[in-house]
Parts: sequence; structure tokens; C-alpha cells
Amino acid sequence: MIIVLKPMATEDDAKQILGKIELKGLKPLFMPGVERIVLGALGDERKLTELQLAAHPMVESVKPILTSYKQVSREMQSHDSQVAIGQGKSKTIIGGENFTVIAGPCAIETKQQIELCSEIVSKHGGNILRGGAFKPRTSPYSFQGLEEDGLVLMRQAAETAGIPCVTEIIDASHVGLLSQYVDALQIGARNMQNFRLLKAAGQSQIPIILKRGMSATIEELLLAAEYIYNEGNQNIILCERGIRTFETRTRNTLDLGAVAYIKNQCHLPVIVDPSHGTGIRELVSPMARAAAACGADGIMVEVHNDPLSALSDGKQSLNESEFESLMRGLKPFVDAAGKVLK
Amino acid sequence: MIIVLKPMATEDDAKQILGKIELKGLKPLFMPGVERIVLGALGDERKLTELQLAAHPMVESVKPILTSYKQVSREMQSHDSQVAIGQGKSKTIIGGENFTVIAGPCAIETKQQIELCSEIVSKHGGNILRGGAFKPRTSPYSFQGLEEDGLVLMRQAAETAGIPCVTEIIDASHVGLLSQYVDALQIGARNMQNFRLLKAAGQSQIPIILKRGMSATIEELLLAAEYIYNEGNQNIILCERGIRTFETRTRNTLDLGAVAYIKNQCHLPVIVDPSHGTGIRELVSPMARAAAACGADGIMVEVHNDPLSALSDGKQSLNESEFESLMRGLKPFVDAAGKVLK
Amino acid sequence: MIIVLKPMATEDDAKQILGKIELKGLKPLFMPGVERIVLGALGDERKLTELQLAAHPMVESVKPILTSYKQVSREMQSHDSQVAIGQGKSKTIIGGENFTVIAGPCAIETKQQIELCSEIVSKHGGNILRGGAFKPRTSPYSFQGLEEDGLVLMRQAAETAGIPCVTEIIDASHVGLLSQYVDALQIGARNMQNFRLLKAAGQSQIPIILKRGMSATIEELLLAAEYIYNEGNQNIILCERGIRTFETRTRNTLDLGAVAYIKNQCHLPVIVDPSHGTGIRELVSPMARAAAACGADGIMVEVHNDPLSALSDGKQSLNESEFESLMRGLKPFVDAAGKVLK
Amino acid sequence: MIIVLKPMATEDDAKQILGKIELKGLKPLFMPGVERIVLGALGDERKLTELQLAAHPMVESVKPILTSYKQVSREMQSHDSQVAIGQGKSKTIIGGENFTVIAGPCAIETKQQIELCSEIVSKHGGNILRGGAFKPRTSPYSFQGLEEDGLVLMRQAAETAGIPCVTEIIDASHVGLLSQYVDALQIGARNMQNFRLLKAAGQSQIPIILKRGMSATIEELLLAAEYIYNEGNQNIILCERGIRTFETRTRNTLDLGAVAYIKNQCHLPVIVDPSHGTGIRELVSPMARAAAACGADGIMVEVHNDPLSALSDGKQSLNESEFESLMRGLKPFVDAAGKVLK
Repeated sequence: MIIVLKPMATEDDAKQILGKIELKGLKPLFMPGVERIVLGALGDERKLTELQLAAHPMVESVKPILTSYKQVSREMQSHDSQVAIGQGKSKTIIGGENFTVIAGPCAIETKQQIELCSEIVSKHGGNILRGGAFKPRTSPYSFQGLEEDGLVLMRQAAETAGIPCVTEIIDASHVGLLSQYVDALQIGARNMQNFRLLKAAGQSQIPIILKRGMSATIEELLLAAEYIYNEGNQNIILCERGIRTFETRTRNTLDLGAVAYIKNQCHLPVIVDPSHGTGIRELVSPMARAAAACGADGIMVEVHNDPLSALSDGKQSLNESEFESLMRGLKPFVDAAGKVLK
Repeated sequence: MIIVLKPMATEDDAKQILGKIELKGLKPLFMPGVERIVLGALGDERKLTELQLAAHPMVESVKPILTSYKQVSREMQSHDSQVAIGQGKSKTIIGGENFTVIAGPCAIETKQQIELCSEIVSKHGGNILRGGAFKPRTSPYSFQGLEEDGLVLMRQAAETAGIPCVTEIIDASHVGLLSQYVDALQIGARNMQNFRLLKAAGQSQIPIILKRGMSATIEELLLAAEYIYNEGNQNIILCERGIRTFETRTRNTLDLGAVAYIKNQCHLPVIVDPSHGTGIRELVSPMARAAAACGADGIMVEVHNDPLSALSDGKQSLNESEFESLMRGLKPFVDAAGKVLK
Repeated sequence: MIIVLKPMATEDDAKQILGKIELKGLKPLFMPGVERIVLGALGDERKLTELQLAAHPMVESVKPILTSYKQVSREMQSHDSQVAIGQGKSKTIIGGENFTVIAGPCAIETKQQIELCSEIVSKHGGNILRGGAFKPRTSPYSFQGLEEDGLVLMRQAAETAGIPCVTEIIDASHVGLLSQYVDALQIGARNMQNFRLLKAAGQSQIPIILKRGMSATIEELLLAAEYIYNEGNQNIILCERGIRTFETRTRNTLDLGAVAYIKNQCHLPVIVDPSHGTGIRELVSPMARAAAACGADGIMVEVHNDPLSALSDGKQSLNESEFESLMRGLKPFVDAAGKVLK
Repeated sequence: MIIVLKPMATEDDAKQILGKIELKGLKPLFMPGVERIVLGALGDERKLTELQLAAHPMVESVKPILTSYKQVSREMQSHDSQVAIGQGKSKTIIGGENFTVIAGPCAIETKQQIELCSEIVSKHGGNILRGGAFKPRTSPYSFQGLEEDGLVLMRQAAETAGIPCVTEIIDASHVGLLSQYVDALQIGARNMQNFRLLKAAGQSQIPIILKRGMSATIEELLLAAEYIYNEGNQNIILCERGIRTFETRTRNTLDLGAVAYIKNQCHLPVIVDPSHGTGIRELVSPMARAAAACGADGIMVEVHNDPLSALSDGKQSLNESEFESLMRGLKPFVDAAGKVLK
């Protein structure tokens, strides 16, 4: 339920009502706005009826939240959320007027490789470095990542370049460890419904980039975000990275319609991963442009100093000149979208 | 096989070689270029080997066409094809630097309705009027269209507005009838592999807008185009209109990655239908922008003077102010793509 | 609407009511049963309300048909339909207690080939010969079938073997031609929503085997059958042949759950095509057994005298010993299902 | 690589060769058979070449394993694996000639509920009790399970009934805890590529029922099993539970073709979940029969004492009489398949 208070209602009025909501066993939410205070109540809505809040002198209206996701919906918060990644000088805001470029290799491989990648990313206008240290690989015989050693290398490279960095988390028990090295955690497509991991991520305050599962519906993605949000972490960025369909020419089918849909329904920032979304180097740049055009708040792309020798995903990784070209070609579309590349 | 002739080769040399190809039972293709002549040979490639063309003094190179589609591939023709729709003043070119907007109602319903729609389309910069007269409907109990009567009405409306018009063809025997009234024929998703219809369309010279089937792979779409092309009609425009996936929030999943892929592999113009591709009015405009951004040559959108009373597809149709807003919002993205809205 | 008459109602009562229904512009349906007469009325149900049939002395109940498909639904006819294919001695009934095996090559290739295939089919208990003469092929450069010449050959082979035969129809104008040679027509997956073809098939009385489209929902399949039924041809057999999914190891995903679902909702016979449904020879037999187990009324399988030299679909075709083995292994499952292999 | 030793080779010969393999950094596998010893070597196959094993006097042949999955493939072990679940009297073998029925509620709700369910299952011939205690739910606001309290209740109920029990594991750290209460662990569809969980499961010896992910390919399922197997736990049962497709009438599309395919390629037992596979009570029994017919080693079905009041999945749960009917109807098909219901 969303409870809109009258303009003259004070914070004390709000507290009093929130107290009643809590007594009924529902989760109270306090959302002060510019013009008036909005309250929320999550849980068994029949119990709320007993409070007869619609008749309360300070309540203007009481309306149900029609979607299954609540706190991440535009019904609950109509303005865009923004999420800060990184500290001090390297702090980057995702959402609002910003169009953010997260780039880097699929996997951290060597000190030299991550340093070169980091240089390429920052030199050509990328905002955040990405790199995998704990890799979820389909086969047990594939390279599984450098683990903590890799994180040490990426942290150094990112600091040298003066940009924040992000890596994928694959186990609920790793939140603490990874938070020592990176500024944001990525939950990958295969773990989008690993609810233990979602809850652990929600109990932290580190920004979470939540990727859509390969066959997850839009609603399931928003409910996965709701898991994190409901635990108390509001620093969530959604990421469309392609869904699995019958089409085999492209690695996945990048669902930009979902991006436009989510931007309408949900207040969280949404970014797009055209590298996994297509799996083909030549398509990364056109799909990055299309992402900007349909309303996305940024992109995440794979960049490697030497894609031909990459230990994973070389086919979809851009080299320096391709990344430089992507950034240059992207700008007019970000401008057209009324956003800013920083 | 593609046979590239040496710069000094004359048209007579080409004719002589084409004659040999034909004698072997293969289909000869003549493709004069600015710098040199290129020839093609379609059919059993083993027979071609017998000609030992690589050793011919006027032949520079002989290489196989690796894709299953031949004549529509960039291997056979590296430059973009352009297709003219309409005659005289109302002639519109699709492809090249043009970004074309085809718009109109799902179905022609009444004289007044198609006239109003036509006015809306032309007034706000649409280039071509669309309207269905023979409707392929899932249920036999749904409105099946006004048939020839509808075409008469649309023709009049289009002429008044000074723009060409297009309608869907659903039967091979209708090519002649429909060609009397419209400037281009649309082959719908359900008929993309109606090979009789493709062949009949190929035996005409009327421009064909070929929509991708709901579960057609990119390769199958290009092979369907090849059916038309191989019969002699090169005036083909491909149209991505969304594929069927597990996602149910949007009517279809608009596959813009396929557009970027096809633009790389095939020389035909490609347009995008964001109305069917999303099924949701609010998503039409963002996806039209994304289409321009990923390299499409135009869009096809549903516009209705009164969407709430539309006999079909009202939920995804734009009214006048929404169409006006789409056109205004689209322009910066078409500019960014280096194309022109006329 | 379904109008159930009281037990004492006569056919004259029924006729009188049907007359009223027709006058209102609805399609009247007469369905005499063992215990009582049931009437149907298709069309704008609001008009029916005006008749106030529920108050008619001979009417027991009036209830709406909740599904979008009407005449093929179990709501309209609760008992199983049966369809006879062939004449005289070679007549075969599909549906009821029968489990029917339709077998033969993908394409008719030569006189000898179709004769050998026909022998194999009839010798090992197959009931109906299948063979393609007009082939819908993805590429224009693939073998397109022997057309009428092939039909002549198959008709002779089928008569020699004493079994009926069936072929695919790909154009609405062919109904008459094909009906001269074969005992049933197959509408393939690519044409399931070729509504012109469905209507033409419905205007004949020849049995129609309607295959599910590659991405057709169950509801769309039943509505396609409704197109045929509504034109007057009730001799319809549905065929599940696999749908298109992300899985690439099998050619299609055979949806036997759809068979069980349709048997619950629709009174038409349903058969299964495990050859196209899997695309892998080794899987044809286990999936034929599963078809019998889940309630199907028969199977359609590809059998070839020499699969390795088949012009199409060799990979999924059974040779004589494999077909013999399939028939032997199938019997216990048909028995368990309470059906009969004849 | 698979290294087949000559008939006269001794175990000492095998050990010597295995030692060489290990020295090269590959994983050595010892697979003694009835007629001869087979060895395996997993890892960088180029290193194996250096050993020139083909020339070794005791080696008959050396051949590569062509599939990406190795230890679970039929290439490595041609005979069927069997997995024992439970101890002593209640021990049940899955695989071989057995057709195993695992049944019980989606979630453990109360002491009485799990006792009643357990009684129903054992009374009508079910072999193993299932029940969820840690539930992976799409929404954070849905019932999440009784956790350890639920396991205590299920253990008691299963012991009273004299059958083993199984529950789902959703976190790698729970292996020890859950193993105290249940005889097998189920890894659900959403966690099929939770590689941390797979590895943890592989480091135990408790039997694992690994369910196919909603959009997992057959190959990905087998590679997920390989993760468990490669850690040392060979007690793996695969479970087909339906994949996600465009079809919405059924909850999922049960892919029985995958079962037949896997039985050909992989030596592990395979069971089928027709409850999740269809989501519709009426379809559970026909699909259970089809599972038996296509070669599955058992089924897992949802049974509830009172489906209408079930906290989750009531729509697809069978009540006592429906379960009794399923078991009765299933028997002839299990017989036809040459298997045994115990």
C-alpha cells in the first residue's frame, strides 16, 4: 500500500502512522518528498484495512501497489534513483543525466594485461573498470579466474588509472572479501535467482549491478532487485545482457524493449551489456548506440588489450582502437538522448 | 561463386565467360562495378571447377560464397541497395542516406478513418502510408479486413496526401490485384516462409517489404529474401518486427541485434517495426530511436486517428500527438546516425 | 454460446430455435447427442441475449464457450472425433481406439524409391504412406520436389501396397489437384497460419493433417483448426511436430505436454511427428513410445529405403530395420494405452 | 583421452601409466571393467601426446573424448550408473531396472501436513519422500520455507513411513546441515549453474538430484553434472523439469526428447518432473507415462494432502486419489519399458 499524506502533515504525523503499520506486522516505509510525505506498508494488506487509514485526518489517499515488485517500482518512487560507485575523486554517479561506460576484460589474467586494459578504458573515456576474478564457467575444465590474486591486481590498476572497479560475485560468503578490493559487485546472469546471494548483497551497502538471467522475465528481474532492496541496499543497477532465444547467429538476443519497459516501471538505473548481448565484436558499437537511444543509463563492454589471446570471450572483446571508435561513435547518440558522457 | 575480373576486362570478356557459365547449367550473374566487373555463378559449384576460370587471362580471382544466401549477401554486392517506392512526385527512396517512416493504421476501417490517418502521417513527416485490407487474423471470428474496397479507399487517401501506400499480401494470386492500388507489398511474419507467395512476389517488380517470421532465424529471413531476389525482383526491404520468446510483458522481443547483423551481411535495406515489436504504445518511440541508432533504414509504425476504437492493435497504435512526438524525438537520432528524415 | 435442450425437446424445437439464432446474424450449430440435443451459436453474443433463450421452455441451459476456439473445443463436443482416411479396403480411421502409423519418405524422389518405401511401410504395419511432392524448402537452391509427377508415382505405390497416402499442400489453389492423387492433405508448420490455405482446405471435405507451427502456441493451433472447421470441413487431425526453442542438440523440442493438453481441451485426433520433433534417428523410437503413452492417436515418421542417399532429412529417417524395430517396440506401449495398432 | 588397455594388462600396468599421466599434470582416471581396464586422462591433451601412450606395449587404443563433458559421458563409461538413496531397509536404488517415484509436497508446511503426505506417498507405492524446507521463491514476499524446523518434521515423517527423503539445497554452506536430515539433495533449476554449490555438492558423497535449468541446454546440464562428478561425487541423478519457451498454456515445456538424448550420451540416471514440467494437475499423469516410455528412470511429482490449501504450487499438486490413480495408470507403461516399480 502507498499512503500519501496531506500537504500539512508533519514528520510526527508520519511517525505515528508508521508506528501503527508496524504494530500490525507490516513493513513500514518512509518516503519524504518535496511536496508531501509518502508512506509505504508491505505485507498482508488485509491487516492494513483494519487501520482504516483512508479515514485518518492527515491521509490524502491510500492505494495498492499493483505490481508484484514494490519498492523498486515507480509507483513507490516516481523519480529516478542514482547510485554512486567509488570514493573521492574517482566517484562516479550512475543514473540521472549520466551515461556511464563500464569496460574491461572478461577475466583478469595478468598484472600487465589488467594494467593495459585499465589504461585503455580510462584513456578513452570509460568511467569504471570491470574484470572477473571468480569466473562462473560452464565447464569445470575452463579457466576459473585468478580469485583474490586477481582482485589485488585490478585494484592497483584501477587506482593508477583513477577510476573505480567492479567484479562479479558468485558466492554469498564473498561479500566482505570482495568489498575490500572493488567499488561495486556484479551478480551475473546465472545467479540472478540465487536468492542467498541476493540477500547477502542486500545486507551490504556496496552497489550491486544485477544482470538479467538468460531466461528471466522482466518481472523476475525486478523481483530479484526487490530481494536486494528489501534487505536494505538501495544501491542497485539493473543490467540487460541478452536473453536466450532460438536465434543462434548472435550469442544472445539483446532485449532493448525490456530496457524501455523497465525505465517506465522501475526507478533504478539500467545499463546494457552489448558484448554478451550479441557475442560479436562488430555489433557491440551499434548496440551501444541503440542502448543510449532507448533510454539506458550506460553500457558495460568487454575491452582487452589483445582480444585474440584472451582466455575467455575474445570474440566479443574490443581492442583499443575499437573501444576508442565506440566511444567516439557513441557520443552523438548520448547527446541526442540528453545525457552526458563524462 | 564470385568471379572478379581484371581491371582491363571488357564487357565482351564478361559476356563470353557468362556464356560458358550458362552452358554448364549454372545461373550467370552480371555485376558491373565502378572499378571492375564482378560475375556470379549459382548452382552446382563442382561443374564450375571444370571451366577452370581461375586460369582465364581476364579473371583476377574466383571465390566461393560462404553463406547459404547468395544474391542478397554483401559478398555478392558490397554496396547498399536502394529501393524506390511510388511514382513521380510521391516517389520515396528507401536505403542509402534516407531514414524512411512508414505509418498508418493496422487495418483500413472506413473512408474517414483512412483519410484522417493519411493526413496525420503526411502532416507530421511520414513518408509512406500503410494500411491492411486483407488481414491475417489468428481467429476466424476476428475482423478480416475490407479487402478490395479498403484498397480503393487507401489509394484515394494516399493520393490526396501525396504519398505512396503499402498493404499486406496474403495470397500468391493477389499480386496483380494489389499492384493496381498500392506502391509496395508487405509479406507478413506468418507468410515469411510461404514460398509460393515469395515466388509470386519475385516474378513481379513491385517493391516487397518482407517481415521476419515470429520464430525465423536471421538466416531463414535472408533465404526468404533470396527466394524473391532469385525470381528477378531486387526491390526488397527487410523488416525486423520482433521475435517470439518466453517474455510476455512485451508482445514480442524486438531483435535489434539482428538488424545490425543483417546490415553487415546483406546489402538490402532494413526497417524496424517497433509497434509489433513491443505491442506497447509507450515503447514505440524509444525503440524507433534505437532502430535509427543501430543502423536501420527506417521504421514502420501503427498510427490511428482514434486508437481506442481501432478494430485491431489499438494498444500499440499512436494517435496524432503521439506520432508527432515520435517524429520530433526521432530526428536527433537520425541526425546522429548520419541519415536524413525527408 | 452452447444451448442445451431439455430431454423432451424435439428436432422441430431445435430447428425453431436455430432459425431465431440465424435471424440474429449468428452462425447456428446443430449437435444432436444420444441423450439430448445441443445447439451452438457463434458470433456477437450480445445479440443472443436479446433472444432470452434461457427462458425458452425447451432450453435447459445456456452457457458461454470460454475458449477462443469454439467448434473444435470439448465444450462444444465432449466425445472424441474420428477421421476416416482412404476408401474401401484401404480405409483407415484415425482417433478413438486406433493408434495410426503414417510413414514414408520426406520427399518422393524416384519411382523405385517410393515403391520401396511404400513396401517397407505396409509390410511392417504402417497404416498410411506419406511423401512430399511440393516441398517447402528454406533455400531456393534446395530440391523443391517432383510436383505432380511425384504424386502419380506415390498414388501407384500406395495402391500396390493397399494403403492410403498423404502429401503436403503448399498453395490454396492446389486443393483440387492434390485431391485427385492423395487421401489426405498435410498443412505444414510454415503454413499453419496461411489463412487462405486453411480456408481453401476447409471448403473441401478431404482430411487435413494440420501441423503445429514452429512457434505457434497451442491456442493458435486450435484457432487454425477452427478456420478449417468453420468452413465446413470437420475432418481434421492435429499434429505436434516440435517447437523451436533455444536447445540446439535436438532439431526441435517435441512438446508432448501440448498433446496431453489438447486431448483435454479439443475433440480432434492428435498425432505426433517424432522425426521432425527430434531430428535424430535414435530418438524417433523412444519419442514414438512417449507419444503413445501421453495419449496421442498416432505418429507420423520418416522412413526411407536408403536414408544416407535421401535428398532431404536423411539424418532423421529410419531404414527398414529401424522402422521394423520401432513398430515392434511401440506395440507394448500402445497396448498399455488401451489402443490398437492395426 | 580414453586409454583402453590390452586384455593381458594388469592393475600394476595401469598404475604405472596413471602415474605418468599424473606427472604430466593431467587428472588420471581408473576404470576397471569386466573384460579390460580403461584409463582416462583429463586436462591439456597436448601434454598427453608427449607420453606417446599409443605406442605403449600394454595399450590397445587411445582416443579423444569428443564431447565437452567427459566423466559423465557414455564414451567414458558405457554401462548405466546406479545411485543408492537411503540406508538399510529404506535403501532405494535409482537407475538400472528400477523406475523410482519420488513424491511429496512442494514445501513442508506443518507436522501434520508432512505426515499425511508421507503416508500418502508410501501407501501408494512412492519410493522417496520430497519436501522443501529452504524455498527459492521468485518474490521476497512469498513463503520462504520452515528451514531446519521443516527438516526435523520431514525426517520423522519419512522414518515413520520407512522411506528415504530428499530436499532442495540453495546454499553451498548448507551441505553438512542438510545431510543430517535427508538422504539426498536436490539442486534446483535456478541453481543449476551456481558453480559454488555444485562444487560443494561434489565434495560430499550424498546423492544429488540435479535439475535442468529453465533455459539450460542439454550440454550445460551435463557440464553442471561434470562439476559435481569431477569433485569426486558420482552419486548424481539428472532431472528434466521443463524448459522455458514461448508457450504459456503450460507452465514449462517438458522436454522428453532431452531425456532420450541424455540416456544415449550419458551414463547417469535421469528422472522427470511432470509437475513443474506442465504446471497442470491433469497433465501430470500422462506425462509421467510418457517419461516411462521414453526411457526415464523415474519421476518426481508433487503430492499434497490438501492441494487447495497448499502454500505453493497447489495447482500442480496431486491429492491422494489422484496420486493413487497416477501410480495405477503408470504401471503398464513401466512394465512395457521393461522396468520395475517397487
